[in-house]
Amino acid sequence: MVDVLVIGGGAAGMAAASKAKRTNHELDILVVEASKFVSYAPCGIPYYVEGLVKDHMDLIHYPAEFFIKKRGINVMTETRVIDIDLEGKTAIIQNAEVSKEIEFSKLIIATGAKPIIPPIEGVELEGIHTIHHIEDGIKLRKTIEKASKIAIVGAGYIGLELTEALIERKKKVILLEMLPHVLPNIDSDMAEIIERKLMERGVDLHLNEKVIAFEGNDRINKVITIKNQYDVDLVILSVGVKPNVDLFKNSKLKFGVKNAIKVNKKMETNLKDIYAAGDVAETKHLVTKKPTWIPLAQTANKMGRVAGANVAGGNMIFPGVVGTAFTKVFDLNIARTGLSEHEAREAGFDVRSVKIEAKTKANYYPGAKTIYVKLIFDAETRRLLGGQIIGGEDTAGRVNVLATALYTNLTVDDIFYIDLGYAPPFAPVWDPLVIASSVAGRKK
Amino acid sequence: MVDVLVIGGGAAGMAAASKAKRTNHELDILVVEASKFVSYAPCGIPYYVEGLVKDHMDLIHYPAEFFIKKRGINVMTETRVIDIDLEGKTAIIQNAEVSKEIEFSKLIIATGAKPIIPPIEGVELEGIHTIHHIEDGIKLRKTIEKASKIAIVGAGYIGLELTEALIERKKKVILLEMLPHVLPNIDSDMAEIIERKLMERGVDLHLNEKVIAFEGNDRINKVITIKNQYDVDLVILSVGVKPNVDLFKNSKLKFGVKNAIKVNKKMETNLKDIYAAGDVAETKHLVTKKPTWIPLAQTANKMGRVAGANVAGGNMIFPGVVGTAFTKVFDLNIARTGLSEHEAREAGFDVRSVKIEAKTKANYYPGAKTIYVKLIFDAETRRLLGGQIIGGEDTAGRVNVLATALYTNLTVDDIFYIDLGYAPPFAPVWDPLVIASSVAGRKK
Repeated sequence: MVDVLVIGGGAAGMAAASKAKRTNHELDILVVEASKFVSYAPCGIPYYVEGLVKDHMDLIHYPAEFFIKKRGINVMTETRVIDIDLEGKTAIIQNAEVSKEIEFSKLIIATGAKPIIPPIEGVELEGIHTIHHIEDGIKLRKTIEKASKIAIVGAGYIGLELTEALIERKKKVILLEMLPHVLPNIDSDMAEIIERKLMERGVDLHLNEKVIAFEGNDRINKVITIKNQYDVDLVILSVGVKPNVDLFKNSKLKFGVKNAIKVNKKMETNLKDIYAAGDVAETKHLVTKKPTWIPLAQTANKMGRVAGANVAGGNMIFPGVVGTAFTKVFDLNIARTGLSEHEAREAGFDVRSVKIEAKTKANYYPGAKTIYVKLIFDAETRRLLGGQIIGGEDTAGRVNVLATALYTNLTVDDIFYIDLGYAPPFAPVWDPLVIASSVAGRKK
Repeated sequence: MVDVLVIGGGAAGMAAASKAKRTNHELDILVVEASKFVSYAPCGIPYYVEGLVKDHMDLIHYPAEFFIKKRGINVMTETRVIDIDLEGKTAIIQNAEVSKEIEFSKLIIATGAKPIIPPIEGVELEGIHTIHHIEDGIKLRKTIEKASKIAIVGAGYIGLELTEALIERKKKVILLEMLPHVLPNIDSDMAEIIERKLMERGVDLHLNEKVIAFEGNDRINKVITIKNQYDVDLVILSVGVKPNVDLFKNSKLKFGVKNAIKVNKKMETNLKDIYAAGDVAETKHLVTKKPTWIPLAQTANKMGRVAGANVAGGNMIFPGVVGTAFTKVFDLNIARTGLSEHEAREAGFDVRSVKIEAKTKANYYPGAKTIYVKLIFDAETRRLLGGQIIGGEDTAGRVNVLATALYTNLTVDDIFYIDLGYAPPFAPVWDPLVIASSVAGRKK
């Protein structure tokens, strides 16, 4: 019998367990994790593959022993929950040594997301990789040693980060995307900047090109698309992720957007004493005010903390997200928040947008880089709906400003008046955000 | 007879003239500027002295001819207004060629700020410089060629930027500050980080040391302080600036904080058709909700634009400032916004603060730098009052997030929930701002 069972030892699970223990030291907490590691950084895997991160252990924030010895949280790695009764509050856990039933008073589901494996012919062939756990990164880094031509299927965040990694490792990269542009939650006019950079760096980029089969004898050696076929040594599938909810298929849990678990602001599911947090859980979009599912690490950590506080008798509220996301492709920094133009239109707004090109420093200060700022806003209310910034530097901080503006419902015109700082090494005297807001001011 | 007379061709003056002309093309606008240049960047002067900016012409955003030919604005440089009648609406302007009376319908006062010359014995000696116009920078850069020991009096923003410039030029720098710490609007615990950096880089820093005399035969060769005396070849006085309002001493204009001209949100003074904008004008502090005077370039530009719109029949409102300021001292980036702990206490808040040390990237990502974040908040309302960030990189964007939070009255606890972005090259999975907010959450 444990007070709190946590399924999943990633960002949300460990944040939840730690916060629960801090909130109530008396609690007996058990975290069950299927992989070898807890508290790991899956976002770091592309940089491990690239070689920027030398040792996979560097991707572990804290080892399991830290939680056991320093925080008094029980952790079992390489252990799976193979069956669960959410109403009877029992779970069967299994690892190499034991298979046993555990009773729990409260449960936090933090099983995260898992890669989508598209139903393509030959997808089960040897040499087709997905990236999920640290172990996948270790395996991939070893395997690419002997590969020279690698196809990456899917040009989302992970696909692009792995593209950079493999180009830096001197591989020939064929990047295949079925949609017309890379990064679906970036607008096409901004995505084109990234596409030019990819091609400039030698990536063999193919848009609008759906994969229809993988071929090979046991091992993959050819990718067939609707337009072409490519000889390859290796394939990385990065077509997206989905909530990892297989265990709960036959439960009475309610599911929402993309089959993520429905939770309220306290991270409570529809079932008593059952919480969900992180990439497995739905949340609220603060711009549309509607449920959404945007699996990201910092959000998962925060949701975990909120669930952990509440499971232990505290009272924390997770207000929701605006979908802020950063990445980097070679020397292009990419940041976005809120709704893209496309998403805003789908959400029913009367969308306007402006896009400007500016510099990151005073013109006369050495090293100024080009930066593109796009602001998306509602024509009637002038409310800011989203923003996208791509450039050589300083995109993250500026998008965080926009994320703050979205958090608090500012208008696109407010951006002009926010007292953003200025000094020649950090911004032009008219900050790129101020210029963009100013241009938006002339657009009704 | 002109429709709009603008006195001063700096940031505020040229922004005002440009916006007025854009708002109403019919207007006959004259800008009168005392120095050789309009639309210049005084903030760039330290970098010109350092040699990072090669040519002083690089500090000119646009030459006077640009405004005359491209924007249809009349500009007279090296021309002074030597007398003015704000009610009779006449001004006497004078330059090397003419002295004449001009009638105007409306006036924008954009005379800026000017260096304070403290009444110290010997302050008139040759070799004692202040930095105000581009010409001062040109003169200083020439003069330092032959100087080896230079005293800088006053460790504010300009004092510190010139300290960096001169150390990079291999000069011996004696930095004298009468207060206990550098940068008076940064709290002492944060200022100490900067002071350590200055000493580490060989600056001969003396705090709590007031200058009482300058000595020399015609030319300065000794600085006498309350504690010591120093042989020097050159002195730079950077003890602060004050509104440049001499011309209006006997007028009926109302003056406010630090003798800056009182204006409303439309940049109107108390006299009909007379506007003031930029470093010469008072404004509202959005945290204290009281009048303040914080002369800064981006603010001056915005105030200028607002004045220009309104003088031409438009309707723009300048809401006020929160005092966001950036600078850089060697490899330390420094950014602050809102009230310091000291300022917050003076303003009557029940002040609490937290200070944390964090990294700018995921720990495992190469090149992560140390960053210190201090948040200042009100104990009762939890409202964020200010923030200061010092570190190796990414201070500006984070302080701009805090400036946005101040603009919209967020609490220190809100900072945790803002959906700030994360990716290993840009932030740790708990952003330093999120960590600081989280620590503040445990402080009641």
